[in-house]
Amino acid sequence: MEIPEVTRELLLRRWPVARLATLGPEGPQLVPIVFAWHEERLWMPVDGKPKRERELARIRNVRGDPRVGVLLDHYDEDWSQLWWLRLEGRAEVAGASDSRLQGAARALRTKYPQYHSVELFRNPARALLVSVERTRSWCAGLEALEHLGADLGDLP
Amino acid sequence: MEIPEVTRELLLRRWPVARLATLGPEGPQLVPIVFAWHEERLWMPVDGKPKRERELARIRNVRGDPRVGVLLDHYDEDWSQLWWLRLEGRAEVAGASDSRLQGAARALRTKYPQYHSVELFRNPARALLVSVERTRSWCAGLEALEHLGADLGDLP
Repeated sequence: MEIPEVTRELLLRRWPVARLATLGPEGPQLVPIVFAWHEERLWMPVDGKPKRERELARIRNVRGDPRVGVLLDHYDEDWSQLWWLRLEGRAEVAGASDSRLQGAARALRTKYPQYHSVELFRNPARALLVSVERTRSWCAGLEALEHLGADLGDLP
Repeated sequence: MEIPEVTRELLLRRWPVARLATLGPEGPQLVPIVFAWHEERLWMPVDGKPKRERELARIRNVRGDPRVGVLLDHYDEDWSQLWWLRLEGRAEVAGASDSRLQGAARALRTKYPQYHSVELFRNPARALLVSVERTRSWCAGLEALEHLGADLGDLP
């Protein structure tokens, strides 16, 4: 069954992690992301979490082909608890001159207290944002939805 | 830092969940997967977990373009615990006549006791398998590696 719209909206606001697929020269390339949902876009900072230089491939990739996929989901040994929410859309890079960046930065700092001790942006400040064109969702049943609702209630 | 090879090997054998990106006509498409590592390939059944018909898009996608990405990772509020393992390669569909399918089925049933009550295959039996061409990994540091090692030790 589908995840109801109100729950999808809460997931986008509160769920802490997702996986991003960009399209590289050799095929789809995946990376885990933190994100904020701000003004109907999904925002990901290029942040100060330690990472390999290579990770910036995601920036090169979206410049070459803006089509991306994003997946929010939760694995549980009890398969009656499974659900996922898939977004497909187009990504762009927002630089320091982008007027939306400050609002997105506030949303990210509010969602992730970790950014009190980790730099939100590397220098120069940049973020990826995704405009969602298609959404699909699935959950195993009513019990999964109840469980998901409880998890969301426990999140900030 | 990289995840050491011995730990990567254990991850492929024991970690219960990954995310698969295939390449659809509209861009990268993501889905959570269960999998077994069998004879140097990553195997995913098209199984009896309840799913939308549409999920079989992954089969159509790899027939159109075999390039796929797979990500194993773990999110933690403590960002010093983060790690990921990324595989890139080519997927193919193995049908009931594929001599490797029975061995992969055994590996899947051994890894997931859930298949005692969920059908391992829909009818007809099919699986996706990925031949890995490139592997990249990252972890936040030694503490993350220790934690990952403990998690792997707790898994079957």
